[in-house]
Amino acid sequence: MHVVVPFSADRPKTRLSAVLSAAERREFSNAMLADVLDALAGVDAAFDTTVLATGPVEVDATVAVDDRPLTTAVNDRLDSTPTAVVMADLALASADALADLLDSTADLSIAAGLGGGTNAFLARDPAFRVDYHGASYRDHLAIAEDAGLSVREVDSRLLAVDIDEPEDLAEVLLHGDGAARDWLVDAGFELDIGGGRVEALRE
Amino acid sequence: MHVVVPFSADRPKTRLSAVLSAAERREFSNAMLADVLDALAGVDAAFDTTVLATGPVEVDATVAVDDRPLTTAVNDRLDSTPTAVVMADLALASADALADLLDSTADLSIAAGLGGGTNAFLARDPAFRVDYHGASYRDHLAIAEDAGLSVREVDSRLLAVDIDEPEDLAEVLLHGDGAARDWLVDAGFELDIGGGRVEALRE
Repeated sequence: MHVVVPFSADRPKTRLSAVLSAAERREFSNAMLADVLDALAGVDAAFDTTVLATGPVEVDATVAVDDRPLTTAVNDRLDSTPTAVVMADLALASADALADLLDSTADLSIAAGLGGGTNAFLARDPAFRVDYHGASYRDHLAIAEDAGLSVREVDSRLLAVDIDEPEDLAEVLLHGDGAARDWLVDAGFELDIGGGRVEALRE
Repeated sequence: MHVVVPFSADRPKTRLSAVLSAAERREFSNAMLADVLDALAGVDAAFDTTVLATGPVEVDATVAVDDRPLTTAVNDRLDSTPTAVVMADLALASADALADLLDSTADLSIAAGLGGGTNAFLARDPAFRVDYHGASYRDHLAIAEDAGLSVREVDSRLLAVDIDEPEDLAEVLLHGDGAARDWLVDAGFELDIGGGRVEALRE
């Protein structure tokens, strides 16, 4: 089994630019990538892991540089199955949550992200193809259905929370226990426990 | 086993007031409550369900009216165990996700909500007590630890998404299949699939 972790090496996490500088976004993205690789390393299964990066990245893993659009680059990897694709910004991903996905025997196992995205999937049939534009989760279910594939929807909060927007940082402070959380704490973020949802604030 | 569904009958969902009128928020809340009760009815286990409401509510279920603060009202119910508490705004909750919680044998099984809340739990030991102020999930883990209880953290996106803020409505349109989704569609909400996360908009 192959596991591919797509990673934007050049301009990562632009939607965090209101709270983090470009250099900080790069550091924070690297920390999240390290956490995802760490969680994968904790899964008791046989697979190889490749970071599919848009440019060079310093990380303790096999890196394949591919600067084509995400959809094209990922589809190229799906000719050989089983292949899983796990996003690099799943800072809460645990080995247990990933094992649940990677153990699945359906032709397509898929975990939704908040806001309609696809945060992780395992394709066991090369008929599956990705299309990451728009609400990709629903599109991916439709692609699988059109191809007659069996589908398992993996229900996981830890895989659903991708860190895209400033309000997502609170989830890392609340539930994270790896490099991304440490980075945020070192950068001065702390939880603001007021009314409603908790937020991450920085002095 | 008892299942308690707390419900604010008087002023529900004030954080949705930017997009829904008071009367609409009441209708939408009732629809979400119906969906949660429907999901519970699909769980293959023996329990009684009580809607713990702050005032009278028209619903096809046993209703107990208790106008005390949520923490007080819920703690009163925890003297008798096993008791589960499931929030009424979990519009995505499925029978499978709830069954996973209700089948659990830990002293406390608990599902986090986005933003640090506690969306559902099952207490099998009367030593557990709730405190819904602030980031209640972490507080509840600490309360369980102090009482020496075994804890299982239930990892579920479908239980994590509570519908509090306007941006949560997109999750109902994307993944819902019950009364709450129908209500939103009838009220004119549709998905806005632009860049980034999908949003729910209304003409």
